[in-house]
Amino acid sequence: MPRWPVPNVAQLFGIEHPIVQAGMVYNSGARLAAAAAEAGCLGLIGAGGRRPDDLRAEIRAARALTSRPVGVNIPLIDKHAHESLDLALEESVGVLVTSAGSPARVAGRIKAAGAVFVHVVATAALARKCEDAGCDAVVCEGFEAGGHNGRDELTTLVLVPACVSAVDIPVIAAGGIATGAQIAAMFALGAAGVQVGSRFAVTRESAGHEAFKRAVVEGDDTRLVLKKHVPVRLLRNAFRDRVEELEARGAGREELAVLLGEGRARRGMGEGDLEEGELEIGQVAALIDDVPGVAELVARLLAQYDAAAARFGG
Amino acid sequence: MPRWPVPNVAQLFGIEHPIVQAGMVYNSGARLAAAAAEAGCLGLIGAGGRRPDDLRAEIRAARALTSRPVGVNIPLIDKHAHESLDLALEESVGVLVTSAGSPARVAGRIKAAGAVFVHVVATAALARKCEDAGCDAVVCEGFEAGGHNGRDELTTLVLVPACVSAVDIPVIAAGGIATGAQIAAMFALGAAGVQVGSRFAVTRESAGHEAFKRAVVEGDDTRLVLKKHVPVRLLRNAFRDRVEELEARGAGREELAVLLGEGRARRGMGEGDLEEGELEIGQVAALIDDVPGVAELVARLLAQYDAAAARFGG
Repeated sequence: MPRWPVPNVAQLFGIEHPIVQAGMVYNSGARLAAAAAEAGCLGLIGAGGRRPDDLRAEIRAARALTSRPVGVNIPLIDKHAHESLDLALEESVGVLVTSAGSPARVAGRIKAAGAVFVHVVATAALARKCEDAGCDAVVCEGFEAGGHNGRDELTTLVLVPACVSAVDIPVIAAGGIATGAQIAAMFALGAAGVQVGSRFAVTRESAGHEAFKRAVVEGDDTRLVLKKHVPVRLLRNAFRDRVEELEARGAGREELAVLLGEGRARRGMGEGDLEEGELEIGQVAALIDDVPGVAELVARLLAQYDAAAARFGG
Repeated sequence: MPRWPVPNVAQLFGIEHPIVQAGMVYNSGARLAAAAAEAGCLGLIGAGGRRPDDLRAEIRAARALTSRPVGVNIPLIDKHAHESLDLALEESVGVLVTSAGSPARVAGRIKAAGAVFVHVVATAALARKCEDAGCDAVVCEGFEAGGHNGRDELTTLVLVPACVSAVDIPVIAAGGIATGAQIAAMFALGAAGVQVGSRFAVTRESAGHEAFKRAVVEGDDTRLVLKKHVPVRLLRNAFRDRVEELEARGAGREELAVLLGEGRARRGMGEGDLEEGELEIGQVAALIDDVPGVAELVARLLAQYDAAAARFGG
């Protein structure tokens, strides 16, 4: 009996385990992506917040660390998104994961280059658009996920079955997945793979600031804020408290934009400013209580997965 | 190989399947609870919104319809809660499920009567309080659930593993469960049972108004509103739109209370006023597209569960 239900996305990506390490701004550089790839998962370099020359350097650095597949995640709202996409394709990156924009606008270029194309959505209607646009798979990410999030607030437990019913392409579940038992739960729902973000952000190989990682280990209070602006899930700190105060008294987009416009994500996750930076992390912060290496983490996820699968006699 | 992982709550409740039909205001009377019991689940009569004499009549009516176990759910914030509890124990109800209040305040009476005692929570810290209070099991209900909800917004996928780690008593997963695949996902997480609400509300035997059931079949846009007052998840209608408008401009508790103070739940679910009533339902509204009988529904859940479990070779 194979470990993973079939069909799953391991074959699509040319990897051992149908687990994707999410692209995450200020956390997922070459070192994390290569370590995830070496552990048998799909590693992703996050293009968000990077200049194109920096992205090129990270892709090449990952290649120097592993010969296994490493993909790139590109948030399409990023100001360099189209340049980054062209560059990744030039560099022969085999898997492109896009988010926060229209998959139809970039599908042509990605498919023409022969790369595997995946887009991230938060509703079943958008999953159907991905299928129509020619995506090879879709990441369905629920309300509990860290960082930027959809407006519909569908949780992973509801979103995944809705997407599995809506499309024929493989559904990769995301949001709220930090243990092997949660991975098994997603396969029970009919997912063909999982994308794990927060748990990989809090590993030794993550590029996030050590103070940020410690804050996640110690904290567990996350909240989806900035719903009128760009919804984002943040760990509690002085900055988030101020955002919530403004929102509670009905502040508009512009007032919130003033508060935001200062590189908050870099300050929080990249520079470790725990009071005034954005600390993007999922609800699974409540389940994260150490900073393991990636190889140790993946071994743990597999052992937990096997134990959960065994509940069903497998 | 038995169908259900052990341990599970079937033995605790003296039932065939570890599935609890949730107590739901204006939906779960004697007819629904007896039908759930006859199908091998634990049926619950909801005491919320009922006068004590009405509750007594429902308990007796259920007894006339089935000899299998039927319990009572009592929201402890209900104005008749303590009278209802005494009455249920007088009537020798074997399972008491309480919610929205302190389990320690009622544990003595329930345990002295020899009844099984279960409380509903939305955080792991409250699950521990239930264990300390002497509860036999705890229902852990996530953000996606319909009706009244916690303030912490933890989703079922995150809450259930957190509670399984926090307590030794059985954890019954609730919120976002309307298919057998979702039931399997909860057992993968280590739950010992599930509580299913919205899906049972939209059955032929539910006491909800037929117009309400049709609205759930046709609609799928739910939202957790009234977070400053008593958080409640509602299907979209004119009433909910007005609540959201008020909240968006920072309205306070009092202004919201005025809007609410008119028996909105009865109007919506009991009387079928689809514009001005509260339509309490979970995010699984997106997955509900028919109004089956309870026996047919339970057979479907079991078939879906078996198919999901088989993904793991069981």
